Amino acid sequence: MMKTISLVMVGFGNVGKAFAQLILDKADLIQKEYQVEFRVTGIATTRHGIAVDPRGIDLQQALQCMQQKVSLDTLCREGVPTSMEEFVQTCPGDALLENSPVNHHTGQPAVGYIRSALMRKMHVVSANKGPVVHAYRELTDLAARQGVKYYFESAVMDGMPIFSLFRSSLPAVELRGFLGILNSTTNLILEFMEKGKSFEEAVQYAQVLGIAEADPAEDVDGWDAAIKVSALATVLMGLDFKPQQVQRQGIAHLTPRMVEEARQAGERWKLVCRARRTPQGLEASVMPQRVSSDSPLYHISGTSSYVQFETDVLAELGMMEGKPGTYTTAYGLLADLLNILQNR
Amino acid sequence: MMKTISLVMVGFGNVGKAFAQLILDKADLIQKEYQVEFRVTGIATTRHGIAVDPRGIDLQQALQCMQQKVSLDTLCREGVPTSMEEFVQTCPGDALLENSPVNHHTGQPAVGYIRSALMRKMHVVSANKGPVVHAYRELTDLAARQGVKYYFESAVMDGMPIFSLFRSSLPAVELRGFLGILNSTTNLILEFMEKGKSFEEAVQYAQVLGIAEADPAEDVDGWDAAIKVSALATVLMGLDFKPQQVQRQGIAHLTPRMVEEARQAGERWKLVCRARRTPQGLEASVMPQRVSSDSPLYHISGTSSYVQFETDVLAELGMMEGKPGTYTTAYGLLADLLNILQNR
Repeated sequence: MMKTISLVMVGFGNVGKAFAQLILDKADLIQKEYQVEFRVTGIATTRHGIAVDPRGIDLQQALQCMQQKVSLDTLCREGVPTSMEEFVQTCPGDALLENSPVNHHTGQPAVGYIRSALMRKMHVVSANKGPVVHAYRELTDLAARQGVKYYFESAVMDGMPIFSLFRSSLPAVELRGFLGILNSTTNLILEFMEKGKSFEEAVQYAQVLGIAEADPAEDVDGWDAAIKVSALATVLMGLDFKPQQVQRQGIAHLTPRMVEEARQAGERWKLVCRARRTPQGLEASVMPQRVSSDSPLYHISGTSSYVQFETDVLAELGMMEGKPGTYTTAYGLLADLLNILQNR
Repeated sequence: MMKTISLVMVGFGNVGKAFAQLILDKADLIQKEYQVEFRVTGIATTRHGIAVDPRGIDLQQALQCMQQKVSLDTLCREGVPTSMEEFVQTCPGDALLENSPVNHHTGQPAVGYIRSALMRKMHVVSANKGPVVHAYRELTDLAARQGVKYYFESAVMDGMPIFSLFRSSLPAVELRGFLGILNSTTNLILEFMEKGKSFEEAVQYAQVLGIAEADPAEDVDGWDAAIKVSALATVLMGLDFKPQQVQRQGIAHLTPRMVEEARQAGERWKLVCRARRTPQGLEASVMPQRVSSDSPLYHISGTSSYVQFETDVLAELGMMEGKPGTYTTAYGLLADLLNILQNR
């Protein structure tokens, strides 16, 4: 029997729009394989209006509005909510898709939206790292008490199945540590430097390509990577480990000469993430290191990323993501949703 | 509430023994996290006797028997079954752990053992590739009709979570193809050749290390890899694709000079597995190829292995296994069992 699942979307940027397109593209497959039909009952943005329609918003129209810079308010069947808070507390739905911008310092306002939705016994799926590092335990416990789920596959390495792998495929393992390359912007910048550019030129080039932000500090200072390390440690190792606790150094001090010296020694500079359980607790770091060609990190190029887990039974389990796109992150949201509906 | 699960083991070689040790080592963790207690009610070998004890065999004793070359018959509480068939049809249990030697041509006698166990409404967990390529559809359908499961995570890349990843973490993806290095013996032989050994010397060296078989043909002719390609295509792509249909070439014709020429060009010879869905069906091959340093396969060294999937939503999803051991394969069996018990 077909089941209709109502979705409430906070945020309709690149990821939100790609998700809308993805559920349009895969609607037939999802109906056939999972007997599920998605209906989006609300889409709220901070700058492009808010649409609410309990009978289901026409996603093609919503995507068109965004393209033509027409406010989503025009799709509202009922009174337009006066705030995001009101929207999250009132829009009817079975699950909240939370895709508001990341706030690394507090996780807000996303934590508040997620809490509101869980209180209303809605599942929550989010690509947002902020709430994971700032409120994972609280939100997961709240979800359990409410009989719903809070999943966030796309928070680390886009839609690659990392959290779901440990949740559903690796019972009774003991995770001892991991290493990896988790920030693709810095990986690309370092590659441009290997081709002879200065750090500043490489950043500019990455900005032109739309990969580095206008303010690249978060990436080049290692913050984004530190947050991902913290998210993995918190969720997979059960430790409450804040990004601030990650020993962190960025790549801004690297010079073309240092990059060339490494190359001559057969090595490459990489922004390496590491975490390791020790008798004293977790040791975690994000820092540029020269890696030699026998390291699995040596070969992670461009916007690819990689994480390698060390467990008691699988000594080295590596996961590589190549050629990520907006669809990759959107797929992580869809996978979370379908996994929730399958009780996985 | 604690649940006791009775296990019947066919085969007690390296993998079987490692599994016994693993469930001894992890007994406390499994009881605590899954409220499950394993009891092995039967162990059957072709050359070291058969033990049956419905109250549970002492695994330490069984391991000792094997070490001291004492027949397992001595652990039998009841009459010793006169054949493996009788054992499989009568030994009481909730799940069969099938670890008999691989038969690539027919999958027998494993297919028969698995069928018998499924008919008795027992789950089956197996590290055996033979039944996967010869009878996956039949056995999986039979299991479904009987309300039980037939899982085989360890059949490809030891205990790496490949089948469970697609089963439990990647809903609604379309798998378009994969490439990889799936046979570690040939990978090691090629590496020895890079260090200046002839093919024959490299094989001998791998034999001394206990990695290559006395008759290395199955590995060096690409058969083992072709069977793994067939298993992945059959299970993950839903195609009935036999090992014989894989275009196959081994590595025995490679000379030190060819290996050296590749090295000088910055390339390495690898036994590359490929499969790709085309409008005409599946195209699959196992053959030695020169790969350059920008290929993810270039860097897979020693006994490591690697598979990279191409899907419609995740363009490149790579899984790397490093430093495999007997525990790795045994863990795949345990993971299958626990995943079955968790309905995953």
